[in-house]
Amino acid sequence: MENTSSLSPNSPSPPPPPSSPTLYTNLKTIASPSKIKHAIVDLAINIKKVGVDDPRRIAHSFKVALAITLVSMVYYLQPFYNGIGDAGMWAILTVVVVFEYTVGATLSKGMNRGFATLLAGALGVGAEAFGSLFGPTVKPVVIGFLVFFLVAAATFSRFIPRIKKKYDYGVLIFILTFSLVSVSGYRVDTIIKLAHQRLSTIIFGGLTCIVISMFVFPVWAGEDLHKLIVTNLEKLASFLEGFGDEYYRVSNGDKSFLGAYKSVLNSKATEESLANLAWWEIGHGKFRFCHPWKQYLKIGVYTRQCAYHIEALSGYLDEQYQVPSEFQIAVQEPCMKMSSEVGKALKELGNSMKRMVYPSPSYVHIENCKKAIDDLNIKLKMSMVVERDDILESIPVIAATSILVDIIKCVEKISEAIEELSKQAHFKKLKDITSDENGKPHFRHRGAAIKPVDGGNDRELSTITVNSDDEIPQEMDLDKNKREINRL
Amino acid sequence: MENTSSLSPNSPSPPPPPSSPTLYTNLKTIASPSKIKHAIVDLAINIKKVGVDDPRRIAHSFKVALAITLVSMVYYLQPFYNGIGDAGMWAILTVVVVFEYTVGATLSKGMNRGFATLLAGALGVGAEAFGSLFGPTVKPVVIGFLVFFLVAAATFSRFIPRIKKKYDYGVLIFILTFSLVSVSGYRVDTIIKLAHQRLSTIIFGGLTCIVISMFVFPVWAGEDLHKLIVTNLEKLASFLEGFGDEYYRVSNGDKSFLGAYKSVLNSKATEESLANLAWWEIGHGKFRFCHPWKQYLKIGVYTRQCAYHIEALSGYLDEQYQVPSEFQIAVQEPCMKMSSEVGKALKELGNSMKRMVYPSPSYVHIENCKKAIDDLNIKLKMSMVVERDDILESIPVIAATSILVDIIKCVEKISEAIEELSKQAHFKKLKDITSDENGKPHFRHRGAAIKPVDGGNDRELSTITVNSDDEIPQEMDLDKNKREINRL
Repeated sequence: MENTSSLSPNSPSPPPPPSSPTLYTNLKTIASPSKIKHAIVDLAINIKKVGVDDPRRIAHSFKVALAITLVSMVYYLQPFYNGIGDAGMWAILTVVVVFEYTVGATLSKGMNRGFATLLAGALGVGAEAFGSLFGPTVKPVVIGFLVFFLVAAATFSRFIPRIKKKYDYGVLIFILTFSLVSVSGYRVDTIIKLAHQRLSTIIFGGLTCIVISMFVFPVWAGEDLHKLIVTNLEKLASFLEGFGDEYYRVSNGDKSFLGAYKSVLNSKATEESLANLAWWEIGHGKFRFCHPWKQYLKIGVYTRQCAYHIEALSGYLDEQYQVPSEFQIAVQEPCMKMSSEVGKALKELGNSMKRMVYPSPSYVHIENCKKAIDDLNIKLKMSMVVERDDILESIPVIAATSILVDIIKCVEKISEAIEELSKQAHFKKLKDITSDENGKPHFRHRGAAIKPVDGGNDRELSTITVNSDDEIPQEMDLDKNKREINRL
Repeated sequence: MENTSSLSPNSPSPPPPPSSPTLYTNLKTIASPSKIKHAIVDLAINIKKVGVDDPRRIAHSFKVALAITLVSMVYYLQPFYNGIGDAGMWAILTVVVVFEYTVGATLSKGMNRGFATLLAGALGVGAEAFGSLFGPTVKPVVIGFLVFFLVAAATFSRFIPRIKKKYDYGVLIFILTFSLVSVSGYRVDTIIKLAHQRLSTIIFGGLTCIVISMFVFPVWAGEDLHKLIVTNLEKLASFLEGFGDEYYRVSNGDKSFLGAYKSVLNSKATEESLANLAWWEIGHGKFRFCHPWKQYLKIGVYTRQCAYHIEALSGYLDEQYQVPSEFQIAVQEPCMKMSSEVGKALKELGNSMKRMVYPSPSYVHIENCKKAIDDLNIKLKMSMVVERDDILESIPVIAATSILVDIIKCVEKISEAIEELSKQAHFKKLKDITSDENGKPHFRHRGAAIKPVDGGNDRELSTITVNSDDEIPQEMDLDKNKREINRL
């Protein structure tokens, strides 16, 4: 996109001729060659971006073209060539509307179309036959009423969430086929011949789509969902890992990672539609047929919840103060520790999901977070007996740390959800993990057996069972400390 | 939904016979009469809910049925009745795929279909004629290549955001029609005759849809967007108005309002699609043709931002402590004032949008919020010189108040966006507002001329010009106070 700056309307252009400058200017604003050039270049850059962002789009375009060319040529070149006729038309129509970007969507549309056509065709033939019982004068009225009420009922059913989610397109095709067949005015034997021909072309068109979408550079909705969840976790992790440096004005480098999390806030619709399409897909790559896609949605919910807190936290970054306050510096160490460790925990979780193994290394970081919270509590106690005038300076700092603690709680929930997914999807277990009798992995960390966080209350940081010889302040009253964490 | 409890699978059923209980149980789980009854009743309740939630859905179903019956009967009953034929089929097909829930969607699809058919038909005829130049042997190859590359290009264009947003369906129909026409194998004169017939049936079907959707119980996307934004504001307002009572355990009544804001978090997709559809709609009700729908999206962004903060704030409600801490009680008055006044401000803003008048009364509440912030600052200063051990108790309280201040800032942004909308959409001005030279309304409030909040920095509560004789602490150093508000 850097090239655009040199192509902006402010770039040097030939000076206007001395005569009739107004006319010249007007013409220039309408269609000066440089403006047209800019527009074309802009369009080209835009188009290039669409392709570069996801090269599978280019492949998809050629796949659709291939399917349509294939289907139309089969009918075009058939030996009894006599124009393409009705049958070929239905095959082309099927390919155009059924071929979607992902395998799941193509399968869903193809199967919906096939079954709906079959069912509606049968019902339509029945309606026709039923109408014929009443003689030619009353028949149109009877068929009219039948079509009216069945179409109304079918249209209404499209509002029922369960049907809307998976069978919306099928109901649409049902309405179409039923209306067409029942008002076609043909006799039943003609209809059956027509229906046979039409159904076979639809199946041919649909199968062409499904085969091409599944075997030529396939785009699997399930795989995309898996990647999306991993990417979202990584985006949040980048923010949190960089937050400390940013909050204490330590770094001055690239800040693009600070905005990346914003796309997570609105990922719900995409996740749900992908999970819905993944339901139709057969096993592919590392994913089995009945991969627990629903559990991905649960991870998505917690990830978004974490993103909401990050949104609140990011508000404390663009304060006008370039120099951290005294109080802010007093809690610098635990604050930076908390954000970097929770970031690392998320990164590890994302990484284990990416590799489809049990999420173990993140426990270390979550435990480190908890140690940092303990440390923060001590620092707060020591720092807050301050002068009356400086108290208000500490308020945004306290708020930010409190939000950080909420984020740690969210990450624990994400960790639990990913652990649940690992179980349901039979992820591989790493060698260096020993399982206890409950099947829960214990991670051996510098001699400390740290219990993974257990279900428990939503707003509560669970009890930490620590038995280690490193820097944890053993002299602290653990029970009281826990109460304080809970408060925080 | 209350009835469902009495219909749950746990309700009493006849005791199993003593012999072969396993078989009986198996049969029972497959299809016992009571289970089937439950399933049917459940389904009925579900269906009823869909209709009760939005009765316009029932109207829509009958509208679609009416359109299809009308179109099919016109072809069915035509004097030269000879089966419905190709032409009628296209009319029915058009109605089925074009008739959408909102007027905007129907207009968008109808116009996309009409223009795309026209353009693709012309290009298809051209391709056919071009192919014929090469003689019958080479023609299929030439046409095949033309179809392949044009379909690939058109499919790729569907990924370009601007096209995807408004013309996605048009491109789909373009691909369909172009492929159909260019491989139809008819001579050009036959094609033109066919095209004329097909286009006229499409226009007839499309017009039927548009007329029925616009004049029979119309559902306008624009109106829905307006209502959605108002409802979202009201949901946030309810939460904030009730937050104080809830936080201080004052109330024990209905708590459903506490969860209502959650739907706002994920309203982005709905808002954008409605705004997109509203773009196609003509003027309706109080909305002119070029109503500034884009500004609604801006209000939506700020509303969601506010909802994210509320999500963070709501975390401080389900703490385990039933009794507010000493520190919490010390700041009770300004805290409850802040939340109730910011709630009232939002309610007034929503109300003025609903009535489509300039948002004026909310200024009072926003000013009250600012007074409460001042008050809070004083209370905090007085309360925070406390015992060392109680300091940690104050942390969640400070965090909650800090988030409340952020919410007030968000509401100011919402207020500005609504004011901008009022200007762009020429909302009515209330009589008791006097405008200054900038056209900004001043609200006269007990002798104080309070300036409405001006653009300014995002994270900054703007300067408050106060000249009043009521309870504002005049003795305070206003400059310092402002700095503290900014910090907060």
